[in-house]
Amino acid sequence: MAPSKTGERLIYLPLGGAGEIGMNAYVYGYGMPGKERLILVDLGVAFPDMDGSPGVDLIMADISWLTARLDRLEAIFITHGHEDHLGGLPHLWSQLKKPVYARAFTATLGRMKMEEAGLARDAIRTVKPRPEVITAGPFEVQFVPVSHSIPESAALVIDTPAGRIVHSGDFKLDRNPIVGEAWDDAAFEAIAAERPIKALMCDSTNVFSPLPGRSESTLGVPLSELIAASSGMVVATTFASNVARLKTLAEAGRAAGRTICLLGRAMKKMVLAGEESGVLQGFPRHIGPEDAQEVPRKNLMLIVTGSQGERRAASAQLARGKYLGLEMREGDTFLFSSKTIPGNEREVSKVVNALSEKGVTIVDDSNGKYHVSGHANRPDLEHVHRLLLPDMLLPMHGEHRHLREHAKLAKDSGIASLVATNGMMIDLTGDAPKVVDRIEAGRTYLDGTALIGAMDGVVRDRIRMALNGHVTVTLIVDEDGEALGEPWVDTMGLPTKGRGGRELSEVLEADLGAFIAGAGRKVMGDDDKLEEALKRTVRQVAMTEIGKKPEVIVVISRLSAE
Amino acid sequence: MAPSKTGERLIYLPLGGAGEIGMNAYVYGYGMPGKERLILVDLGVAFPDMDGSPGVDLIMADISWLTARLDRLEAIFITHGHEDHLGGLPHLWSQLKKPVYARAFTATLGRMKMEEAGLARDAIRTVKPRPEVITAGPFEVQFVPVSHSIPESAALVIDTPAGRIVHSGDFKLDRNPIVGEAWDDAAFEAIAAERPIKALMCDSTNVFSPLPGRSESTLGVPLSELIAASSGMVVATTFASNVARLKTLAEAGRAAGRTICLLGRAMKKMVLAGEESGVLQGFPRHIGPEDAQEVPRKNLMLIVTGSQGERRAASAQLARGKYLGLEMREGDTFLFSSKTIPGNEREVSKVVNALSEKGVTIVDDSNGKYHVSGHANRPDLEHVHRLLLPDMLLPMHGEHRHLREHAKLAKDSGIASLVATNGMMIDLTGDAPKVVDRIEAGRTYLDGTALIGAMDGVVRDRIRMALNGHVTVTLIVDEDGEALGEPWVDTMGLPTKGRGGRELSEVLEADLGAFIAGAGRKVMGDDDKLEEALKRTVRQVAMTEIGKKPEVIVVISRLSAE
Repeated sequence: MAPSKTGERLIYLPLGGAGEIGMNAYVYGYGMPGKERLILVDLGVAFPDMDGSPGVDLIMADISWLTARLDRLEAIFITHGHEDHLGGLPHLWSQLKKPVYARAFTATLGRMKMEEAGLARDAIRTVKPRPEVITAGPFEVQFVPVSHSIPESAALVIDTPAGRIVHSGDFKLDRNPIVGEAWDDAAFEAIAAERPIKALMCDSTNVFSPLPGRSESTLGVPLSELIAASSGMVVATTFASNVARLKTLAEAGRAAGRTICLLGRAMKKMVLAGEESGVLQGFPRHIGPEDAQEVPRKNLMLIVTGSQGERRAASAQLARGKYLGLEMREGDTFLFSSKTIPGNEREVSKVVNALSEKGVTIVDDSNGKYHVSGHANRPDLEHVHRLLLPDMLLPMHGEHRHLREHAKLAKDSGIASLVATNGMMIDLTGDAPKVVDRIEAGRTYLDGTALIGAMDGVVRDRIRMALNGHVTVTLIVDEDGEALGEPWVDTMGLPTKGRGGRELSEVLEADLGAFIAGAGRKVMGDDDKLEEALKRTVRQVAMTEIGKKPEVIVVISRLSAE
Repeated sequence: MAPSKTGERLIYLPLGGAGEIGMNAYVYGYGMPGKERLILVDLGVAFPDMDGSPGVDLIMADISWLTARLDRLEAIFITHGHEDHLGGLPHLWSQLKKPVYARAFTATLGRMKMEEAGLARDAIRTVKPRPEVITAGPFEVQFVPVSHSIPESAALVIDTPAGRIVHSGDFKLDRNPIVGEAWDDAAFEAIAAERPIKALMCDSTNVFSPLPGRSESTLGVPLSELIAASSGMVVATTFASNVARLKTLAEAGRAAGRTICLLGRAMKKMVLAGEESGVLQGFPRHIGPEDAQEVPRKNLMLIVTGSQGERRAASAQLARGKYLGLEMREGDTFLFSSKTIPGNEREVSKVVNALSEKGVTIVDDSNGKYHVSGHANRPDLEHVHRLLLPDMLLPMHGEHRHLREHAKLAKDSGIASLVATNGMMIDLTGDAPKVVDRIEAGRTYLDGTALIGAMDGVVRDRIRMALNGHVTVTLIVDEDGEALGEPWVDTMGLPTKGRGGRELSEVLEADLGAFIAGAGRKVMGDDDKLEEALKRTVRQVAMTEIGKKPEVIVVISRLSAE
């Protein structure tokens, strides 16, 4: 366990996921400092919001540290198929072009994504669980099945010359998960017995949840009872990727004598991927929306996308009106078999209130009966710490407060720990983790089809336009430096009337005209000075008229003598 | 109780607050249809967000229905001093110019607001609690003290020729509220005994909370224990207007041997208003931030604004760094003696994570020990229904789902009810509420210093710019309809590079130039056609280059022959 005599070292560098819940991307390296051979674990996305990233489609870790060291990158490993672990692949893979390893279900989802993006399906290679070993430079990697809220989630056992690492991925301790493999204490005991665990990189999502997590299998009975007690149509929503939940819901519906119909592209895709990869067997027979219209409401159950209130998903569509010929009515029941992810409350609440207006009975998870989390709670984390007895623990998959609490929990059990956030390079070679470098860890936005940096100023300008509105000033100046006609003003996103009911654009034009009439040759002859002066005038006048300082574009066209 | 033989009627018309939590504004009317004399109860604000109302300062009910009937409006009554009941007054009062009635503490706050807005302080008249009666046309109004999370909250007893109404205002059943009057069953029993209650308009905020509400007085002991057990500086945040909580916190701090310092403008204003109006007595001695710097951290407690993560409030400032010479450090404790209002999770989480980075211990209300709600829970509502035994109940102060649940609760007890949302005019004259009209119930935005309608398109354009970015195209056309030079493009909030790394604005200019070169006289001679064609070209090219369709302003300047 002593530092390598050769001077080689083992490093850990989170690029995403350590400091937020989302966009997971973790680098491991082994070798001489600055020459380490590298692997990347996960390449996920986070989701944008109007507050911080309006207009953006997806948020990913900035991988420029990696792309500057492509010759040292051996491979990419994906722990499971959730968007925050897999979703960056189709957008960033062509900058990396390294082999991607994943288990069958994850690989199936990954290939679907690669194909949609016009990339090579065969970049993704299917791996069997441990004992299969993938050798990637100095790393030997095994996938160990863990239970989570998507099939075939895996922890990674990463063997290096400096010791064995367990990278937990996302997991919970579910001994009866309905679909996929149960959590297996013995498997992890064997892993630790085989070779001591140098470092555990561990999911921190639920470190603040004080009670042991509950099994997926606890939901079947309450769900069946709820559905059996409902009179009209029943609609249930959950995360599409929670295939076990889809099955639990569908079986509960069937048990209550209902015909099942799946709505939403993601839902159908997941069931397809589950069947294709073999993880999903015996999913109850289900019908399409057209056939569903023929089924009496009291015999029908829809399982739909949109548990987070997403505007274009099936839940929101059903809340607004008819969707694919189906419509909710008074006496129907809508079930959220899901939790609202912090930040999505407003969108979910819109769906709930729209359903309430239709007279629909809404059942959510407030009583804890219809949803269980996919992450290990605090006592479950402690259990895993004890099972693996790692020399050190690096908390990941959490906001700063989660990482800090998890590090504290580890230290309280005598395990060396450290809060390593995105961009902190940690040397794991010694007995305790040590910060050896800090790199610029930014965010990359997928914006339409363009990839832009979070700090490029593009989104900052959008936010400013949203807050302050926009004014365009155009002015033509002739060859003598005299204004040709009056300045012209266009506004967007601003009140049309100023103080006393005058037209804002007219007031602006008049005041700009007055300024220009009085401006000397020095200002009129210098584009930069003139632009600055016109911008200042617009802001001052707007402040007086409407109490706001808009963003201003000034276009000065100079006519040259012909 | 029968309909008036004379044909006169009693109406209820919520303009705000019935369909959302915020911007309360309720109209009552009595008289011949279309000639009812009117009173307004409350005139509050709601708060904007980036998703729906970027750049907006405050949201208020659209009062144009009232301003079109000013000759019929008698008076305005304000139940209590919270922003969602009082906050619209300084912005809308000058359109109404009617006397405003409120209890002393509320009136003090209202006068501060009027003064800041440059309006007459004496528009607000102080009313004593029942039995004092304000006569306003056919209405006789009494203020009945209720417990809530601000001093001197009041329910209104509104007597009309058609019967007695109780308008609950915001309330909870607190028999030991620390500051201000306790909830008084006997007072309400007497009100119902004096004259039967025709209609109860009732707070619905906590209708989904199944357990009886808890008293403010339950917080003192846990808070004292928490503070006594803390080693470094203690900082506690709550709503500034919750004067009882300020006192509870300050007393708990004093009991633990700490010196108290209040931070934040709103906090000091509230304590001042409390002392000025006489509701707040014996508030512990407290010092300013300059003196606080001299107090050892372990003997200091700050009580600060910003429980909702507001960027400019003291909590967020302390999370970011030094504020007024005070700074949080490792080992300090930060307490949220508040709940996060749905929709504010992201902002609060930013504060929490920034404090976590400083090593501060964060204590929130997740264990239910350090905060109690100011609204009546479901069993409390049922208790009030039983106390007053109204003929009918109109739920207010809630989103649609709250109103619907509350109406259901009332109907289950045999009370006639109806979900009346903003803009629904309800005739209360008969035995059950009856919808008699629906008016356009919109929202007015305070935007800088301008008042604009929510549907004016101003905010829609801002949202579009934030989502899609903005392009300005300028083109000069000579007297022959020929382009003079090339079109000029400015972009804002858009990626600078398109496909293959070409400059987006250059590609746009080239493609617009090519279009213009090929455009016939018919297009070049017609501003509307030309503008439309240039916009279309920009959108098509941008879609190809960056996968987005921006907002476009086209400015065509035509030079006339001189």
